[in-house]
Formats: sequence, C-alpha cells, structure tokens
Amino acid sequence: MQWFYEELTYKTRSQTAHLITDFLTENLPWIKTIDLGLLNVFLQHTSASLSINENCDPDVRDDLVMSLDRIVPENMAYKHKDEGADDMPAHVKSSLLGVSLNIPIRNGALNLGRWQGIYLCEHRSMPHVRKIVCTANGVVGL
Amino acid sequence: MQWFYEELTYKTRSQTAHLITDFLTENLPWIKTIDLGLLNVFLQHTSASLSINENCDPDVRDDLVMSLDRIVPENMAYKHKDEGADDMPAHVKSSLLGVSLNIPIRNGALNLGRWQGIYLCEHRSMPHVRKIVCTANGVVGL
Amino acid sequence: MQWFYEELTYKTRSQTAHLITDFLTENLPWIKTIDLGLLNVFLQHTSASLSINENCDPDVRDDLVMSLDRIVPENMAYKHKDEGADDMPAHVKSSLLGVSLNIPIRNGALNLGRWQGIYLCEHRSMPHVRKIVCTANGVVGL
Repeated sequence: MQWFYEELTYKTRSQTAHLITDFLTENLPWIKTIDLGLLNVFLQHTSASLSINENCDPDVRDDLVMSLDRIVPENMAYKHKDEGADDMPAHVKSSLLGVSLNIPIRNGALNLGRWQGIYLCEHRSMPHVRKIVCTANGVVGL
Repeated sequence: MQWFYEELTYKTRSQTAHLITDFLTENLPWIKTIDLGLLNVFLQHTSASLSINENCDPDVRDDLVMSLDRIVPENMAYKHKDEGADDMPAHVKSSLLGVSLNIPIRNGALNLGRWQGIYLCEHRSMPHVRKIVCTANGVVGL
Repeated sequence: MQWFYEELTYKTRSQTAHLITDFLTENLPWIKTIDLGLLNVFLQHTSASLSINENCDPDVRDDLVMSLDRIVPENMAYKHKDEGADDMPAHVKSSLLGVSLNIPIRNGALNLGRWQGIYLCEHRSMPHVRKIVCTANGVVGL
C-alpha cells in the first residue's frame, strides 16, 4: 500500500472541454507502478469542471459545451453577476459536472474504457490557470 | 487493509434507469468481509451513467429518464450525429450524471440510505452490454 | 495508514444550498491528524445533494437553486407525485449533482481551492434531517 500526490497546473484556452488524459498520465508517472488502486483528480475551482467523456471526436466536446450553454443560459436574472455574464452559469455548470473524479488504476494504467477520456471543462470565456490535485493510493507491484 | 477488484458486465434493455444494487452486491461477495471501507463503481462508457436514487418506485426511474430527455433533447443542432439522434444527448447525460460512484462500506454492507439504490442509466435507445469496474479497499474484520 | 468514520446529521432549513464546510471540519477533528489522504462525504438521501461551489457570496447559492428550478421545473407531467410537486424534481436534482463527494486531505486539512466550499443542497421545500456518512483513509503523521 502506498500513497501518491501531485499538484498540477493547466492553462485553459477558453470556454472549451479540454481533453487532459495524456497530460495527466505524463505528469503522474507513478501510475505505472500501481498494480491496483484508485486515483482522485480534484479541480480546485468553482467555474470549471472535470468529466469523463468521448476521447476521439472533437465535435463531442463542442456539442457538450453548446448543450451546457443551453441548459444554463447566460441571460437569466442572476443575482451574482459582478464578474460578468459568464460567471454564474460557470458556477452552475461546475456543480452539474463536478470537480472530483475517481478513476480505478489496474496493471499500471488508468482503467478507462476504450472511448473514455478525461475532460477539464473550462466554463469561463477567458483562459485561466487551473490547479489540479491528484491523489492516489494502491498496491504497488510493478 | 485489503484491496478488492472485479469486472462485471451488465446487459441493458433500452433507454432506462436500471436498478443494479442487488446485481452488484451479489457479484461482490467480499463486501461482506469489509468492516470499514469504500467501494468505487466505475462504468467504462460514455453514453450511459451511474447514479444513486430512489430504490422503490419504478415511476421515479421513468420520470428521471423523461426529465433527462427534456434537459438534453435530441432535436438540437449537434455536430456529432453519425451514430444516431440519441448518441450526442447520451454523451451529455453521461457527463451530467457521471460514471464513477463512491459508496462507503460499513459492517459488511454498502452504507446506503434506506431509500437509496444504484442506477445504471442507459442513455442509448438500443440495448448495450456495459462493463462495470468495481474497486474497493478497506479494513477486513468480518 | 488509518481509517476514520463518522455519521453526522444536519438539519436543513428549506430548499436552499447550505454551506457545510465548517460543520464538517468541526465534527471531523481527525482530519487534522492526516498528512495525506482522501475524505468521502456521502449523503444517505435521494432528494438532496452534495456539491462543491463558491464559498463566499450567498447569491451564488440562491442563483444555483434558481437555476436548478429552471432546469428541473415542478410543473412537468411526473408520474411520481404522491409526496408533492417538489418531490420528483428533488430526485432529478439529486442525480444531477450527486450525493457522494471525494475530497483530498493534505497536511491536516481539506485540500479545497481558495473559493471552494461544500454545499448540502436541500431540494425539498420543507426542512429535513439529513444523514451524512464521512469515511476517510490516509497516512497519519501529524
């Protein structure tokens, strides 16, 4: 049994779903040593989210962003609006998708399905620097 | 401290919320040996979800499906549509509900509330074979 | 490596997002002893949710509640309506936000972002007594 910990930062481009699977695995080399365990990926923000979805077609990411805009439109009578029209919708989207992902580790790799990738969804219009806390524990045998 | 791991497959019937609590506990007999721990249930797909909700009235499952259809309708201008009109909405629903559940284990049983059950929500119209990765760790004392 | 467990109860006021970060840390004093670990907070209910969002401006909580009401309105043709018009929307909101949170622990504290707080979202109109199961494991070194 061993614990692992890493704080990463990721610069988002704009309101987009960023596919960060490779970014994570490249920066968490100890995943390769874990035979069986769990990885928690935790985003320390309230206007962005983590989600798992399709890893191949960029259209899925665009459609997800478009859908979220429709589900949580900007032109509502929000009370919290000092930081701009995109701010409160970003908070709601963050709660809908969540900021904490738990992913099984098996045989030295994230045990994702064939079509699954990890998204960092930036819900604000402007680029941001986002902090990601990665915590894992598991049986080391590789 | 011990780790447990099991890969299960579940055949969904159609776009429905399937109550899989008993399916899981019957296929994870080692839960009974865990005094205190956590179970991660991870669905390796991007057009279905895991969720916890009411375990008694099937109407709740039907209403959940109906509500999700309204929140993420099929007749939107999706770019990703090669796999059918139900595909992109299924991806969005998958992100909204999530594919990874963490459930406490206490005294050899899932520590769910009285009315809580585990749903596998199939968001595609057709039946699918879905893979579920179950990973647990905890103190074994029973 | 050590495990920790606590069952808490929290009385909600009404359909509101309650900021419970301090309530949790005050009732889980063993967090201070954990150098590196993970806390699972699990709500044993199907008409309330746990979420992480902005910890400062109460308007964000109000706007979140308003947004969820718009996303899951009461005046739909729900089949499950014996417990009142607010019941089935509460179930849907519970699935959208979720009932299980995983939060990293580092240096004796929850490793939340500067603006993050933990919400218990009561989706029913009336006050309720809500049970929260807290399970943690980690390396104790403080």
